[in-house]
Amino acid sequence: MSELLKRLSLNQITLNKLSLKECVEICVRHNIGWIAPWRNKVAEAGLAESARLIRDAGLKVSGLCRGGYFPAATAKERAERIEDNLRAIDEAATLGADVLVLVCGPAPDRDIDAARGMVADGIAAILNHAHLSGIKLAIEPLHPMFAADRSVICLLDEALQLAQKFPASDVGLALDAFHIWWDPFVYDKLKACSGRILTWHVSDWAVPLPGIFAARSMMGTGVIELRRLRAAVEASGYLGPIEVEIMNEALWNRPADDVVIEMKRTFAEYV
Amino acid sequence: MSELLKRLSLNQITLNKLSLKECVEICVRHNIGWIAPWRNKVAEAGLAESARLIRDAGLKVSGLCRGGYFPAATAKERAERIEDNLRAIDEAATLGADVLVLVCGPAPDRDIDAARGMVADGIAAILNHAHLSGIKLAIEPLHPMFAADRSVICLLDEALQLAQKFPASDVGLALDAFHIWWDPFVYDKLKACSGRILTWHVSDWAVPLPGIFAARSMMGTGVIELRRLRAAVEASGYLGPIEVEIMNEALWNRPADDVVIEMKRTFAEYV
Repeated sequence: MSELLKRLSLNQITLNKLSLKECVEICVRHNIGWIAPWRNKVAEAGLAESARLIRDAGLKVSGLCRGGYFPAATAKERAERIEDNLRAIDEAATLGADVLVLVCGPAPDRDIDAARGMVADGIAAILNHAHLSGIKLAIEPLHPMFAADRSVICLLDEALQLAQKFPASDVGLALDAFHIWWDPFVYDKLKACSGRILTWHVSDWAVPLPGIFAARSMMGTGVIELRRLRAAVEASGYLGPIEVEIMNEALWNRPADDVVIEMKRTFAEYV
Repeated sequence: MSELLKRLSLNQITLNKLSLKECVEICVRHNIGWIAPWRNKVAEAGLAESARLIRDAGLKVSGLCRGGYFPAATAKERAERIEDNLRAIDEAATLGADVLVLVCGPAPDRDIDAARGMVADGIAAILNHAHLSGIKLAIEPLHPMFAADRSVICLLDEALQLAQKFPASDVGLALDAFHIWWDPFVYDKLKACSGRILTWHVSDWAVPLPGIFAARSMMGTGVIELRRLRAAVEASGYLGPIEVEIMNEALWNRPADDVVIEMKRTFAEYV
């Protein structure tokens, strides 16, 4: 197996109809060494059982999806979000992950700047527990098309500035080609991220987009310069697992083994 | 009529099922002083007839939509795009517009940086004709969700850097709240645009989005801080007409007079 393929990690949402157990089994069947579980699937299988399934299969966990969603209208709700993030940190530790991905969440109203402040406050509130648990927090800048409903943090340099409020040993970035490819200054910004990149996600941007949330496509079917971006990510010091994370209705409706075979082929060819 | 309402301009795509003649008539009926025609509608009505309709109704033209689409795979195609932009400049002059809006176009392949270079080359190629025709070129940074299919120019600071390659008397920016609201640095960037803003467009970003191209909503139904953005645009020196530009299927299917009444009300309340 090539060095690149050894870095391939299956982000579970790519096969969203499968249970965690089925995802683990398909990784084993196709010789994939890494997995990135989602919390809803872990909850369905049970946390201890999920950890056991992954460990017994010999898989490594590239990251847990996801914490975040810090902004909320009331102090009580914001405290609940923080509690949920503390649980997510515990789950990540139990699963053997090093990284918890943070999708920071939308604003509860029109005041997006205030919501950005709530994100910074939320990360500060969970930092110590993450540190003591051995979990790094990975802020994910989402594509600006999700600024109103999924993340007020949507520019790479914005996410980096936020991460830099905290020690590099505790807080970094979850970068996804789908979210950042279009940025005219992306290569300069990636240089500035040196030492802060905690995970790298790939998919592609096809024209026309197949949807809004389920907007992503298989590598090679879109316009993203995946190889050039990976080179820049690596030049900034990230050489860890590379997650394939594709939300796509048509893909979810295909036989999972076929998807995995195509994923491995296009990963080798385009990533 | 309030000073603000005197600045309202009907961008023709907001009533996309109407002809130019019908749009002119509805402006007169509702006491709207400005219109922003689209070239396809002007072509349907005929250029000279369009100019006559607008002039006879006493309307002013806030801008013509649109030139641009400079990148293409071959030199021959790029030359054709430039020819088309020269015609757009002539049309803008005939219609009595001061401003031609440039939607810069997508890349013909995966090389988005090369396409950005083609945009700069294209503007340089039409600059002299625009200058001699008394038409200012307004580069419109589009929301990054359109980076693959409508414009490789999608950040406000990127558009400003591009405009600054040319004299401020000839090239500036067409800014649209829908495209720039999410930018975490938007207010600093707007400050830097002082003297370069040539037109200001409004609509809203509703959750969930009603579509991808037809993604916009009536002012007040979404999350955009329209009033705060207008204040920043005005602080940068732009005090001209404000176009309502809403692509929205449901809106297009409603009676046009109802839409215009709602547009005037929400413009006064939220813009």
